[in-house]
Amino acid sequence: MSTAETLRALLDGPHTATRERVRWWLSQPGNEPADDLPIEEHRARVLEWTKELASEGDTAIGYPVEYGGKNDPGAGVTAFETLAMGDLSLLVKCGVQFGLFGGAILHLGTEKHHARYLRDVGAMDLPGCYAMTETGHGSNVQALRTTATYDPQTQEFVVNTPDDDARKDYIGNAARDGRLAVVFAQLITGGEERGVHALLVPIRDEDGEPCDGVRIEDCGAKLGLNGVDNGRLWFDNVRVPRENLLDKLAQVHADGTYFSPIENPTRRFFTMLGTLIQGRISVGGASISASKVALTIAVRRALERRQFGPPGGDEEALLMDYRTHQRRLLVPLAKTYALSFTQLRLVEDLHAVFTNEDAPERERRELETLAAGVKAIATWHATDTIQGCREACGGAGYLRSSRFASLKADTDVFTTFEGDNTILLQLAAKNLLTDYKDAFGELDKLGMAQFVAGQALSVLSERVPLRKLADSLLPGRDDDADLLAHKTQLDLFRWRHEHLLAGAARRLKGGIDAKRDPFDVLVDTQDHVLDVARSWVDLVILESFVEAAKGNALLSKLCTLYALSVIEAERGYFQEHGRLSATRSKGVVKAVNTLCGELRPHVRDLVDAFGVPETALGDARLVADEQEQVPA
Amino acid sequence: MSTAETLRALLDGPHTATRERVRWWLSQPGNEPADDLPIEEHRARVLEWTKELASEGDTAIGYPVEYGGKNDPGAGVTAFETLAMGDLSLLVKCGVQFGLFGGAILHLGTEKHHARYLRDVGAMDLPGCYAMTETGHGSNVQALRTTATYDPQTQEFVVNTPDDDARKDYIGNAARDGRLAVVFAQLITGGEERGVHALLVPIRDEDGEPCDGVRIEDCGAKLGLNGVDNGRLWFDNVRVPRENLLDKLAQVHADGTYFSPIENPTRRFFTMLGTLIQGRISVGGASISASKVALTIAVRRALERRQFGPPGGDEEALLMDYRTHQRRLLVPLAKTYALSFTQLRLVEDLHAVFTNEDAPERERRELETLAAGVKAIATWHATDTIQGCREACGGAGYLRSSRFASLKADTDVFTTFEGDNTILLQLAAKNLLTDYKDAFGELDKLGMAQFVAGQALSVLSERVPLRKLADSLLPGRDDDADLLAHKTQLDLFRWRHEHLLAGAARRLKGGIDAKRDPFDVLVDTQDHVLDVARSWVDLVILESFVEAAKGNALLSKLCTLYALSVIEAERGYFQEHGRLSATRSKGVVKAVNTLCGELRPHVRDLVDAFGVPETALGDARLVADEQEQVPA
Repeated sequence: MSTAETLRALLDGPHTATRERVRWWLSQPGNEPADDLPIEEHRARVLEWTKELASEGDTAIGYPVEYGGKNDPGAGVTAFETLAMGDLSLLVKCGVQFGLFGGAILHLGTEKHHARYLRDVGAMDLPGCYAMTETGHGSNVQALRTTATYDPQTQEFVVNTPDDDARKDYIGNAARDGRLAVVFAQLITGGEERGVHALLVPIRDEDGEPCDGVRIEDCGAKLGLNGVDNGRLWFDNVRVPRENLLDKLAQVHADGTYFSPIENPTRRFFTMLGTLIQGRISVGGASISASKVALTIAVRRALERRQFGPPGGDEEALLMDYRTHQRRLLVPLAKTYALSFTQLRLVEDLHAVFTNEDAPERERRELETLAAGVKAIATWHATDTIQGCREACGGAGYLRSSRFASLKADTDVFTTFEGDNTILLQLAAKNLLTDYKDAFGELDKLGMAQFVAGQALSVLSERVPLRKLADSLLPGRDDDADLLAHKTQLDLFRWRHEHLLAGAARRLKGGIDAKRDPFDVLVDTQDHVLDVARSWVDLVILESFVEAAKGNALLSKLCTLYALSVIEAERGYFQEHGRLSATRSKGVVKAVNTLCGELRPHVRDLVDAFGVPETALGDARLVADEQEQVPA
Repeated sequence: MSTAETLRALLDGPHTATRERVRWWLSQPGNEPADDLPIEEHRARVLEWTKELASEGDTAIGYPVEYGGKNDPGAGVTAFETLAMGDLSLLVKCGVQFGLFGGAILHLGTEKHHARYLRDVGAMDLPGCYAMTETGHGSNVQALRTTATYDPQTQEFVVNTPDDDARKDYIGNAARDGRLAVVFAQLITGGEERGVHALLVPIRDEDGEPCDGVRIEDCGAKLGLNGVDNGRLWFDNVRVPRENLLDKLAQVHADGTYFSPIENPTRRFFTMLGTLIQGRISVGGASISASKVALTIAVRRALERRQFGPPGGDEEALLMDYRTHQRRLLVPLAKTYALSFTQLRLVEDLHAVFTNEDAPERERRELETLAAGVKAIATWHATDTIQGCREACGGAGYLRSSRFASLKADTDVFTTFEGDNTILLQLAAKNLLTDYKDAFGELDKLGMAQFVAGQALSVLSERVPLRKLADSLLPGRDDDADLLAHKTQLDLFRWRHEHLLAGAARRLKGGIDAKRDPFDVLVDTQDHVLDVARSWVDLVILESFVEAAKGNALLSKLCTLYALSVIEAERGYFQEHGRLSATRSKGVVKAVNTLCGELRPHVRDLVDAFGVPETALGDARLVADEQEQVPA
């Protein structure tokens, strides 16, 4: 195998056939990104594509076999993330229909819902919506204000939008195609509020007309993803039968009696959200694919485009031979590899948890933490990388035909949807702080600041001085350790995370012990808390890369570039805590430059390994043929 | 005066009336950004607007009085940068027509050109192009390949495009409206190549048909700025009369004899480019205005939007009360103020140089350095800030009606045009290294690496050990100095720049002395060289802010936030060189957080002071009225 082939096999992981099938589809004439169509035509094209993919069974891979699927969530997510190399409106349309809408029915519904709907959903015969977000509440889902009040007389739920602040907003499939919606609403039964639950509400009839009591509005043009028909929904006391409640986690009996196996309402709420992390993992994966497209375009251009050059030389120098250009492209390239390997691990974990009803709670929580953290880091990485690649292609990258216009615009919202990145990092940090508490059996009772995605802080009572324990975790500085060795890199990453974690726990606890207002304590420590999550994701990413690079010298070097570029960015922190001497810190900067130079000859192999279909690469990778004659 | 009014007076500087006039125009019905029009309609609207502004004398302010102007380049640039709060296609159309096209005639042409063209150009009666960039050469203008060969028989220049690589590309006004073009071409006379010169070439006749021998192609849809008609131009041996050469810096006599008062061709080339820096300064200013628009939207939203909140509280907390949100918005807000004050200084310098024919060479070079550096930093700042503000507005920021779509897309190319940012930083660094040499009289002969915008490296001979001198510049670390004092901040910024500068000079010189390949030396030091420029711009920006903040406690605090946020980002470097102890470095991080909290109550005043017209703010600044009832 060629170098690129070897690398590609490693990057593609266990679902090679699935990936190749999607690449093949993207390469067919007519399936290239439809970046320049007017909105309505784009929406129509995307719907057609979605139906085509559905008819070929490509969209229900993760569903149970009995409903047309293959019961293979791992392959399903893999297909999805590969699709992200093409038109991203198609990707998001599929994500809404098969992932969010179908996924909610699958994971929050029970047998009767599966039997009635799943086959039609997977075949795109029943287009639907995932109506969670409201105008007034996006991140704080627990505070949604749409209501679903049970009426025992008629055994129906009455779904109502109290005011415009509570209308469902930005809902994919709502403006044009959707017929049924999974609506998240405050459930009220027996006069009591039961928290947010999901239920199925028809929104359009067979003729495409809005159902009685349902008002639909088109969100109109967006910054990107204009092939997806996002809309707003209002419900004016719409009645749906009792069985429309997706009742896996909670049931309402005919007389209105409420029952849930999960007694704590907050735990029930987070269990509900937890079943839906597939979307988060899919968006993270899609971001990595979009970064690969951008890097492939920019690197190929940098290997053709010449500008300035050695004094007295005959030819100008290739852009790729400039150190600034190498840093601009190779550092994000290394991180894209790192994220790819992390994503493989994440998809494997997802598959394990979602094909095992009895997966332990701990595994589920770890998956949730990793999914949240990787989604945030991968989507920000895509935003940065695509921007950097656009700039690296200069004016050519500014033409719509270069694909950067759509790559930038379409991926922009990835940092917001499926969980705002800042909120997700806080969620990850909360889990890590909880795990940290768990890891010290003897600390269990001493208490730890607990907070939930940016809100509640509470604490138990102190027994043991936390500082002492945390410090004992930290190995001393080793000035002789080889920074090019993965072990040294891992040690530094791990130390940084543990130190940030212990420090955040101490500050939170200290604030609470001092009886300060918990919200003030949270605000004061918030940036520290985000760093806890970031440093942990960095560590997991490095671990994944080190593991994947075993036995491959080129990958190992690329992995070191990733590791040292993170250490370079964080060298202020490492020095502050005596983990890097001034000399070694300077050495890291130097090493990043040297590694860029050493990896330069391999850069074409490194992007070829991504296997981005030519149809997805646009024009900017090419420069005009220098010798072509002027026709007139 | 209210706080906002006081701040606004400081931000607006000497040309208040000009700014208010543009704000008034932008606020008129029909003048709001036309972000959603189809391309051809957008182009037509922009042309109409341009003519309207021209007819009212708003576009020729910088031209001499005898041609309809006010001979006030400072006010001209100020009007332009204020216009950037509105439709950015209009801004760029004006920039192309009055700044680039008209500016080239003004600064590279002589009396006869001024008399014949300037009035029509300023009135938009003669739409024109600035045809510099070619498909194959954007940054390396010296290597353009279009030729202009003098034919003494007919006393004409023959303008020719040898191949597609040499076609003029991305040329504003070319696809639709332009009639005359300033074409940059390799001048050939008497069989000798004379380097790049500019000459006037008609491209369309009165009926809008392309002239004989001229081929025009539309660049088509772009990532943004679609109200500007960018196009490509090919010249097939097009003949223009001898007087069409813009002959301020070089003349060709009837018999083909070439004469220039500037003997050195490279110096002549850079003198030519130097006259055109007004465009660069204008783009930097426009970026600052666009950042102000984005920040105003995001801050106003953060002061209305609530999400999550104190446990047990009745109301959710305002986004603006979260530390992460404060960091996200207040740090770029501080830098936007800092850049605003720097821009005031830059425009003042521009005005001084461009209204004084005898301005010393040194002043011109300083202006060039500052213009290059500020353009790079301000345009990158706009890209980052607009992106951060979009994310801070969540889903609402993703709707086209929020203005982030156009702000992002339209400003994206600012980092590329009027000089690619990376190239500009190298240009600034080259000037600084040259100045550095000049500053040490006794070092004059010892030599300094000289290179020109990423290319030629050469060196003289060594006499004095450079390291010794450089080190003597550096004051010792002062752990007691108050980091909240501007003097301490300035000292740190200055030290960082001087240390980077001395180090870069040493490395360049060392490489050359060791007889290494000059291109390799450049590549090895390239990122260091960019830091020389960055650190210098940072210093100038801080100096400007400190000066402007004198006597205003609020501004002084905002200035400290700017200073400490830069020191925070660079604290790895400061620690490496013993300029910050670990403890003080941690203190900087803490101080940035504290300052964010302290400035929080003033944030509305701080953005109101920008004076962005309401018509430019889009929808995302508003949240839905919480109590509005559902109509149906």
